[in-house]
Amino acid sequence: MKRISVLGSTGSIGTQTLSVIEHHPESFVVEALAAGRNAELLLKQAHQFKPRLVSVQDKVTADAVKDELPSGTKLVYGEEGLIEAASCQEADTVVTAVVGSVGLKSTLAAIEEGKTIGLANKETLVTAGHLVTAAAKRKGVKLMPIDSEHSAIFQSLNGESMSDVDSITITASGGSFRDRTREQLAHVTVEEALKHPNWSMGAKITIDSATMANKGLEVIEAHWLFELDYDRIHVLIHPESIIHSYVEYVDGSIIAQLGVPDMRVPIQYALSYPERMTSPAERLNLAKIAKLHFRELDTARYPMVRYAYESGRIGGTATTVFNAANEVAVARFLQGEIAFLDIERIVENALAGHRVQVDPSLEIIEETDREIRQAAQKF
Amino acid sequence: MKRISVLGSTGSIGTQTLSVIEHHPESFVVEALAAGRNAELLLKQAHQFKPRLVSVQDKVTADAVKDELPSGTKLVYGEEGLIEAASCQEADTVVTAVVGSVGLKSTLAAIEEGKTIGLANKETLVTAGHLVTAAAKRKGVKLMPIDSEHSAIFQSLNGESMSDVDSITITASGGSFRDRTREQLAHVTVEEALKHPNWSMGAKITIDSATMANKGLEVIEAHWLFELDYDRIHVLIHPESIIHSYVEYVDGSIIAQLGVPDMRVPIQYALSYPERMTSPAERLNLAKIAKLHFRELDTARYPMVRYAYESGRIGGTATTVFNAANEVAVARFLQGEIAFLDIERIVENALAGHRVQVDPSLEIIEETDREIRQAAQKF
Repeated sequence: MKRISVLGSTGSIGTQTLSVIEHHPESFVVEALAAGRNAELLLKQAHQFKPRLVSVQDKVTADAVKDELPSGTKLVYGEEGLIEAASCQEADTVVTAVVGSVGLKSTLAAIEEGKTIGLANKETLVTAGHLVTAAAKRKGVKLMPIDSEHSAIFQSLNGESMSDVDSITITASGGSFRDRTREQLAHVTVEEALKHPNWSMGAKITIDSATMANKGLEVIEAHWLFELDYDRIHVLIHPESIIHSYVEYVDGSIIAQLGVPDMRVPIQYALSYPERMTSPAERLNLAKIAKLHFRELDTARYPMVRYAYESGRIGGTATTVFNAANEVAVARFLQGEIAFLDIERIVENALAGHRVQVDPSLEIIEETDREIRQAAQKF
Repeated sequence: MKRISVLGSTGSIGTQTLSVIEHHPESFVVEALAAGRNAELLLKQAHQFKPRLVSVQDKVTADAVKDELPSGTKLVYGEEGLIEAASCQEADTVVTAVVGSVGLKSTLAAIEEGKTIGLANKETLVTAGHLVTAAAKRKGVKLMPIDSEHSAIFQSLNGESMSDVDSITITASGGSFRDRTREQLAHVTVEEALKHPNWSMGAKITIDSATMANKGLEVIEAHWLFELDYDRIHVLIHPESIIHSYVEYVDGSIIAQLGVPDMRVPIQYALSYPERMTSPAERLNLAKIAKLHFRELDTARYPMVRYAYESGRIGGTATTVFNAANEVAVARFLQGEIAFLDIERIVENALAGHRVQVDPSLEIIEETDREIRQAAQKF
C-alpha cells in the first residue's frame, strides 16, 4: 500500500492522479490533498478519498470549505499549508502537480522528508535542478517523472546502464499550430491556441505546447533527471504522439515507449514503479493508426526550443529567466493582452537583458523569478 | 573476455558474428569454428581468428583444408565434429547459426556443457522447444536470441517482470511479395523471391520471409523463449522493419526496440549482454525515414502463419512437421522443381496427413523429421 499526497489535486494532473488511485484502492491511499481555489472540486475529492490533511491556497478558500470537510480531515492553507501537505508524515509518495514555480519549495520540503517524488511540476527542475537533484541524492529520494516524455525515457532505461546511453530523443507533437507558417502565427487567437490535437491538458501547458516552450522545459528537465549533456538530448517532431520518447544506446539500438496518449499511464507508472498495474487506458492498435510520421525540429520555426537549449547550456539563473518570462508571457496572451508571437519576444528580451548568476541559491532563484515576472509584464 | 564457438561460421549469421567479434578484440575471442563445405572461406576465417578447433561437414572438405589450417588448430568433421565444436571446453558461449534441423543436437550438446547459447537456429526451438528449454533450465543456461525480432522482445523485457507482460508483437516486413495478390504469387520466380526489401540474408530465410513461414517459426520460437501462450503472441505487418518487435504491458505501455535493419546489432547484443558495446551499424534517423507503416496480418494472404499457429497450439510433433515440410518445400522451390504457392500446399498436406505424437523424445522428433522430409519430396 502506497500512501500518497497530491499537491495540485484539482488540476489536470491532480484529477488524473486521483483517477489512477481510485482504480487501485488495494494499492494506493490518499493522505493529503493540496488545491488552489477550486473549493467545490476539492470538497468532492475530500469526501471521496477522506485524506488526513487538506490544504488550500488562501484563507478565503479555507473559510469556504472548513465546515464541509469530512470529520477527521485537518485543514491548512497558504504556502505553509502546501508545505505541510508536502511533508505530511504519513505519506511516502508526493505527487507535485502544482503548476508554476510555487511547486519548488513544496517539492524540496517533500524531498527533505524522504518522500518519493512523482514529479509533474516542470519548473522544479527547470529553475532549481542543481538544488533539487543534489537534495534528492543526499536523501536517497527517487524522482519519478510523470510527464509522458520523461516517463517514456525512464521506462526505456529500465534494466540498462546509463554508461551505455548514447542520447535521448524527446518527441513533440508540434502543438496545435504545427502546420502554420510564422506569418500565420502572428494573428492566432487564444481559442485556437487552446485546441491541442492529441492531449487534453491545462491552459498553460497547451500554450507551451503551441510555442514548443514545453519541449524546451522538457529538455532542461531531462538534463537534470537523466544527467545528460544538452548535446545528447534531441527533440523530434512526431505529430501522432504515439512514440512518447526514446533512448538510443551505443550499439545503435533504440528503446522506445509507445502508447495512446493518456496521462494516466505515466502517472500510474510513477506510483506503481517498479511494478506495473492494469489500466483503463485505451490500448494502442498500430494497424489501426497505420502511419507514424517524423520530421526534424526547425528551431527557426520554434525559437522557444532554441532559447531553452541556450539558457540550459548557460545554466545558473538563465533557466529561471526562461521559465518566469514564459509563464508571464503565456498568462498575458491568455488574458488577451499580447499576440501569440509576443510570447517569444518577451522571453528573448528577458534572456537578453539578464545578468546570469552561477550556482544560485533558492533565495537568488526566487529573487530572479520575482524580478523577471515584474519585468516581463512590461516587455 | 568471452570465448566463443561459432557453429555455421561461413553462413550469413556466422560471418556477421565474426564481424562483430572482429570489432571487439578486447572482449571476444574465437575458440571454435564449424562450417559446412565452404573450405575457402573457412580457411580465411581460421587464419584470421586462429581457433583451437575447426569442424567441417564431411571428410572431403576436411581433406581439402587439413594442410592449410594454422598450426595449432585441430580439425574434426561430420556430426561428431559439429558436436565437438559445440561442446568445446574453452568456449563459454556458442553461437548456433547452423541452418536447418542439424542445429538441434549441437545446441543440446552445448547446453549440456553449460554454455551460454546465442541462438540463431530457429529449428532448435521449433522442433524441440520443450526439450531445449527444459535442458537450459536444468543447466541454468541462458538462451540469448540472435534473431532481430526476438532480440527486440528480449531487449524490451529488460528490467521488467514477465508477470506484467500482456502480449508481445512480432513485426513482419511482409517479405518481397507483400504487395502481390495470391494470383500474382502463382508464377513468381526464384530470382524474384530472393530479393528481400530490407534484409540481406541466406536463401532459405529469404524464401521463408516471402511466404512468411519465418514469422510462423518466430511465433513458435517466441512461445518457448518467453513462455507465452499463442494467444499472447501477435504478428503485425510493418514494411520498413524499423520497429523490430515489441512488448505490451498490462498498463497499456508498449516498449519497443528500433533500429536500422542490421543483424550485427542483435548478434552483438547476444554476445555482450547484459552490457552494450559500440557498433559500426548505421544509426537510425527517424526524421529521414519520415514515415512508418503498419497493417494487420491477413492470414488468408499468408496461410503459412496460420499453419504455424495451428501446429504450435497442437504441439508435440506438429511443429516438426511444419518445419521439415517447409524446409523441403523451400529447397524444391529453389531448385525450380515446384511453384511458389506449392510451398504452402506441401506444408498443408504434410500437416493434414500427420498423426501427432505428444511430448516427443529427440528420437521421435528425428524420426518424424526424416519421415516428413521423405514424404514432402513427393507431395
